[in-house]
Amino acid sequence: MNTIINNIAIEKAKTSKINEVDFDNLKFGHVFSDHMLECNYKGGKWQTPVVKPYQPIVLDPAAKIFHYGQSVFEGMKAYKDVDEKVWLFRPLENFKRLNISSKRLAIPELPESYFMDGLKTLLEVDKDWIPKKAGSSLYIRPFIFASGNGFHASPADEYKFIICTAPSGAYFAGEVRVLIEEKYSRSANGGVGFAKAGGNYAGQFYPTQLAIEKGYQQVIWTDDNTHEYIEEAGAMNIFVRINDTLVTGPTSDRILDGITRKSIIELAKSENIPVEVRKITVSEVVEAAKNGSLKEMFGAGTAAVISPISGFGYKNEDYELPKFDDTYASYLKKRITDIQTNKAADPFGWRYEVK
Amino acid sequence: MNTIINNIAIEKAKTSKINEVDFDNLKFGHVFSDHMLECNYKGGKWQTPVVKPYQPIVLDPAAKIFHYGQSVFEGMKAYKDVDEKVWLFRPLENFKRLNISSKRLAIPELPESYFMDGLKTLLEVDKDWIPKKAGSSLYIRPFIFASGNGFHASPADEYKFIICTAPSGAYFAGEVRVLIEEKYSRSANGGVGFAKAGGNYAGQFYPTQLAIEKGYQQVIWTDDNTHEYIEEAGAMNIFVRINDTLVTGPTSDRILDGITRKSIIELAKSENIPVEVRKITVSEVVEAAKNGSLKEMFGAGTAAVISPISGFGYKNEDYELPKFDDTYASYLKKRITDIQTNKAADPFGWRYEVK
Repeated sequence: MNTIINNIAIEKAKTSKINEVDFDNLKFGHVFSDHMLECNYKGGKWQTPVVKPYQPIVLDPAAKIFHYGQSVFEGMKAYKDVDEKVWLFRPLENFKRLNISSKRLAIPELPESYFMDGLKTLLEVDKDWIPKKAGSSLYIRPFIFASGNGFHASPADEYKFIICTAPSGAYFAGEVRVLIEEKYSRSANGGVGFAKAGGNYAGQFYPTQLAIEKGYQQVIWTDDNTHEYIEEAGAMNIFVRINDTLVTGPTSDRILDGITRKSIIELAKSENIPVEVRKITVSEVVEAAKNGSLKEMFGAGTAAVISPISGFGYKNEDYELPKFDDTYASYLKKRITDIQTNKAADPFGWRYEVK
Repeated sequence: MNTIINNIAIEKAKTSKINEVDFDNLKFGHVFSDHMLECNYKGGKWQTPVVKPYQPIVLDPAAKIFHYGQSVFEGMKAYKDVDEKVWLFRPLENFKRLNISSKRLAIPELPESYFMDGLKTLLEVDKDWIPKKAGSSLYIRPFIFASGNGFHASPADEYKFIICTAPSGAYFAGEVRVLIEEKYSRSANGGVGFAKAGGNYAGQFYPTQLAIEKGYQQVIWTDDNTHEYIEEAGAMNIFVRINDTLVTGPTSDRILDGITRKSIIELAKSENIPVEVRKITVSEVVEAAKNGSLKEMFGAGTAAVISPISGFGYKNEDYELPKFDDTYASYLKKRITDIQTNKAADPFGWRYEVK
């Protein structure tokens, strides 16, 4: 039977897959919940979203997503606390960034209510899928792609906005070793690097494979012109700790305005950790590694929250980072996840209860 | 009933749509033939392709094409001459470039026989769809995309290689006015600009929309670092004629190695037209427009073959190109299309008969 919540029609799945899922041994993004949100753009406007059973998407072979890569996405997480309350983390920031990405990719911007009411309704319907175990969460993937047809390299006339959710464990298993890139690049000045555009990620796969073959797990991206400035770590923003100062690069049209990144900056400042937002050179990091002032490096993003880097390679040299217990990475990760999961006070107003 | 040609199984469409098509008034890439080729990569290898009725593609919402833009494509044309013989133009160049693009996008490379035999079989089955009218052709779109699932930013484990065909008229209707880009870029050093990756095209839509709002049809792309070098025209390579010399930029990791581009270079040289392959600066083109030595500009690509540019805008100034009859653009376009359609001798061995 169909019901309506927040003006959104719900078609319930006839059966649930939830009993097939081992919530104690979740991988990241490999199991999907019973329902999804779907919202179609056609005739020049976004239509009212619906919640329906998780199901395949049927597209004409000429749909522009297959040919011209016109797509954007977001990554979010929902947490369930001990009282079964459900929490999101700064969801309006994801909504705003989705529209910033869409604008750059010539995708029509989405009304806020379709995103927020759609998301809340979906989480209400699939609330049993939100893991309670520490370190786990319901990973949320809102995405938009060109579903309209044609072999003409121009924006589509139809789009699909979909939200899927996946109960998930940790993104990375432990520390990662990274390779500072000297040849390949992820973004151009005046390009789409600041957007969560699908094509930004596919372009990273091959250089990352090459790094993996050399014994690293991720690439540290540098600017495409000089390869002298550190920009991102894999699909995450990057932080470097030199002595006691935390440094991260400024956002630009090449660098994603990460929500975890800006939360870390604000949190660190409030805890009197010295923070600098400025360009970081490769030579400065190498020099700091050599003289011992480089204490930590870590990636920051929704999926991994904070992902510590244990060492890096550059120009056929390997550099090890020191190992110690009370790192900024572990401290800040705990502070952020405690706020996200309602285990600590939230002086910033970041937490958002779904009810 | 299923038949087999070139070891490829054919499932024929039960009914044909061909009588619904007005072959005298074809648009570009809006009508699709009765059949398509499909070839799936799974279990670590490409499976034998099949020809089947043109039909929707069914994908899980977590298929990586929707999230990470992992896709590449090619553009080709088939022509039918007065004797009903069917011709392709340098198809092995498209095959090779597809694999070059795939490698950069971390997509498994395709065996040559699956591409060539698949294409020939598809054209045999749909030969009645190849237009005979001058200026028309069967546009061929081979493409590969990530069909494997997962919300992890890494290469998929399954892919689909598909060829669709569309009887098509001319790509552009007449001359185009272009805007030389000063802010946005299509590719980075060390990026994927040389590949026919889907994401390269979506990134162009928004800057092109802005140019259209200003009264232009296309953008001339410049390098992302200085915006001082001319690189591509919309989704085509660019040629500039200064006095009697034809100039085009060298290919690089930012510029597509266009098959029409290199055919024009070879053809022009054989006809004793002076050709220079070198970097072209914006200031040189503006200066040539001012002193009258800029005779022509045109885009070159499979879809439009040669697309003459009537004028350009730069820094809020408009520059008109001279109008005259015996242009390199019209001469070279006729020479190439005569070779493509078997109306003239082919001293280069470019033409490829499908039989």
